[in-house]
Amino acid sequence: MQIFLEQLHQVLDQKYILTEDQDKNPYLTDWRKRYTGKALAVVLPRTAQEVAQIIRLCAINQVAVVPQGGHTGFCGGATPDSSGKQIVLNLKRMNTIREIDVANQTITVEAGCILQAIQEKAAAQDFLFPLSLGAEGSCMIGGNLATNAGGTNVLRYGNTRDLCLGLEVVTAKGEIWNGLKGLRKDNTGYDLRDLFIGSEGTLGIITAAVMKLYPLPISQWTTLVAADSVVSTITLLNLFQKRATSLLTGFEMMTQESLDLNEKHFPQMANPLKGNPPYTVLIELSDHESEAHVRQLLETILEEAFEASLITDAVIANNLAQANTFWHMREHITLAQAEEGANLKHDITIPLSALESFIEETDALVRAKFPGVRIINFGHLGDGNLHYNIAPPIGVDHKAFNLTNEKPIHELVYAQVERCQGSISAEHGVGQLKLEGLRAHKGEVAHELMKTLKRALDPQNILNPHKVVSI
Amino acid sequence: MQIFLEQLHQVLDQKYILTEDQDKNPYLTDWRKRYTGKALAVVLPRTAQEVAQIIRLCAINQVAVVPQGGHTGFCGGATPDSSGKQIVLNLKRMNTIREIDVANQTITVEAGCILQAIQEKAAAQDFLFPLSLGAEGSCMIGGNLATNAGGTNVLRYGNTRDLCLGLEVVTAKGEIWNGLKGLRKDNTGYDLRDLFIGSEGTLGIITAAVMKLYPLPISQWTTLVAADSVVSTITLLNLFQKRATSLLTGFEMMTQESLDLNEKHFPQMANPLKGNPPYTVLIELSDHESEAHVRQLLETILEEAFEASLITDAVIANNLAQANTFWHMREHITLAQAEEGANLKHDITIPLSALESFIEETDALVRAKFPGVRIINFGHLGDGNLHYNIAPPIGVDHKAFNLTNEKPIHELVYAQVERCQGSISAEHGVGQLKLEGLRAHKGEVAHELMKTLKRALDPQNILNPHKVVSI
Repeated sequence: MQIFLEQLHQVLDQKYILTEDQDKNPYLTDWRKRYTGKALAVVLPRTAQEVAQIIRLCAINQVAVVPQGGHTGFCGGATPDSSGKQIVLNLKRMNTIREIDVANQTITVEAGCILQAIQEKAAAQDFLFPLSLGAEGSCMIGGNLATNAGGTNVLRYGNTRDLCLGLEVVTAKGEIWNGLKGLRKDNTGYDLRDLFIGSEGTLGIITAAVMKLYPLPISQWTTLVAADSVVSTITLLNLFQKRATSLLTGFEMMTQESLDLNEKHFPQMANPLKGNPPYTVLIELSDHESEAHVRQLLETILEEAFEASLITDAVIANNLAQANTFWHMREHITLAQAEEGANLKHDITIPLSALESFIEETDALVRAKFPGVRIINFGHLGDGNLHYNIAPPIGVDHKAFNLTNEKPIHELVYAQVERCQGSISAEHGVGQLKLEGLRAHKGEVAHELMKTLKRALDPQNILNPHKVVSI
Repeated sequence: MQIFLEQLHQVLDQKYILTEDQDKNPYLTDWRKRYTGKALAVVLPRTAQEVAQIIRLCAINQVAVVPQGGHTGFCGGATPDSSGKQIVLNLKRMNTIREIDVANQTITVEAGCILQAIQEKAAAQDFLFPLSLGAEGSCMIGGNLATNAGGTNVLRYGNTRDLCLGLEVVTAKGEIWNGLKGLRKDNTGYDLRDLFIGSEGTLGIITAAVMKLYPLPISQWTTLVAADSVVSTITLLNLFQKRATSLLTGFEMMTQESLDLNEKHFPQMANPLKGNPPYTVLIELSDHESEAHVRQLLETILEEAFEASLITDAVIANNLAQANTFWHMREHITLAQAEEGANLKHDITIPLSALESFIEETDALVRAKFPGVRIINFGHLGDGNLHYNIAPPIGVDHKAFNLTNEKPIHELVYAQVERCQGSISAEHGVGQLKLEGLRAHKGEVAHELMKTLKRALDPQNILNPHKVVSI
């Protein structure tokens, strides 16, 4: 390994090869402090050429490499294992925004650009870069692409995959694929781009990307509405999809128990809807015409929803500050859960037509088998994406409860996901967290196809091994 | 081969294994009659299980299989070679629409469903299935997926790839991957779906798919406008993108020479804009609110375009019949070219920011080197997709001209495409037509990655060999 480290010095300046514990440590634990690993070294390349040279050295020396951006992932995909034999390749120095192309409505960014920096750069040119998620001040676009990140704008603009037109990738051979084209149509062979997106650094290392930009909306209106049942919220969603179509940019659901927890830890985040109804839905419309136009449209649809008894109450934000408060309420559920103590999380997607049956049946099963638990169910309902989390009964020790009940609760919830043809990872990826369960979830044929692809593109198994799929 | 044919009879009824010339012939020549091959047999399975059994027999007997839908492709991707040793696997009997899921806004269709049948089934339930292209009365969704078809609605709804949520695929091993999930978010491993889409049957055979549906617009307005320059059309596009955003569903450009040709062969298709301007643009807005709303928006934007001198004339269609006439004018360019005699076609994409330079420079080079030729340049400008076709000078024999000039003209145009970082196949795919040029276009690294994928997923090279990529 000494030889390998010496070879690295021929590629990178000494200060960009971290081997001392105090220098390495910040890169060895994820943001949520759930995973900690060891590393031979942390390397900080500045260019795709440097990344390629490093990978060639890894290939020669059989050293595994863990690519890393902001290290904000939820599944341990960017944390090295405990062997101390892997290197972490952190891309934060590759943080140049290479180009904004106004006529083509694209932005070319390096993997280490912080998401918020890209949003701000786009906004300065009167464009929207729609990818938006909780970690946007820390996460990097390379990690967003590697995990195909979701977030709150998927309903209108799609996942990270849908926002990407081209990639620059370093392969397991240490070659650079320059696929940085900003084209909306390109049918020249296999879709390499989408193969690398979402592969969590196991098939190649994304070093840059061409991303789509959109015109900035000139007006947004946000409302909170109360619904009595899941089926009402789905019918309400379909109504908004039909009437507002692509003006609908947010449709987030929060259950009573989720907002009870919020209020307990953040009293200022109490639900402004009277009596905290069974289901509170945050709806956002965005418009490029005029404030009056979108406000009128929102009111018309809400009237229709009242008449059809889909909703029982509604509050429209009067200004941007109040709209932000509504969104903060939604975002604080995550923080309230952290305050309350670790719970059992499920980031799942269910087809909208099966959502009612999923929630009713799973709620009943969970409550029957684990009396007193709290079901903190909230999420991006417009995408069928629920964060269906189970907290212990009030007063019960979280650690002890989770230790005993983690396996049976996961099994129960995931069995329900399978019954409904859903996904066990909507937007957080696989990483190491969901590696074990993936074969059963995907089925033998798909899982074998994944292994075949991994073996073909990384035959030495040096790119983020034992993440997503083990070969 | 006799043994193989006998084994096939254990899978399919005699009448679905065509071996007589008169039965096979309709499957051996493509729609445009540019490619003709031979086949050992044409097989017509009804289920994914039958397809899988056939592929297993092909694998055992080393027989190559050419999957086929409506056989309307432009690049010979679904035509067998001349050896007579391949079989054609036509999917037209797999034409069941398995399900429409209203709440989930999805439709599950078998590969042999005709595109128009899917559009009609969707419309009967008040949904839009947006994929729309010239061959829609004959082409099948399996072929649309295999080639990632484009068409006139890409600007708003994306390519076929963007409309697909899940697939059922028979692999080269004869296994069935059931990936028929209707989920908007699913980050559980590698993107197998997008790998099969656009692979033209060379990595697996798509037997069914879950496709997205959209609410039907309630009003559409179509206009023709006149522009003096390419840069005006691009600025006009950006203006419409900013003001109308997703209400903009069509933005098609036609040059003066394209419409001259139209008028020559179809006088009733003459340009209604005075004097047939250098660039005629067809613009369509679609709305879910009201006719008055979208009409008003269109007029406002056109006023702004006049004031900014982006356009010199405009005609708004007064009714649906006139709107259809505008679209027919656009579509008749293809027919007018056929009437005039074969020309040299280029289905290309150019980044919008490079389009002006591409057209001006390429036009000048073509006219200088091939005096008197007519440049029939038209296309989906909103996607940067041009059909940049070269017809011989008036009075010159088409066949003789094409024979002499095909190679240098293709080389000139494609060199310009490379200079502008464009694509040599925007929406028609690779098939056999563009197989040779692909390595140079993609670059060595991407082309090797494609070969690696082909070898990994089809090691015996039995799935549509020598299409897209040769191994």
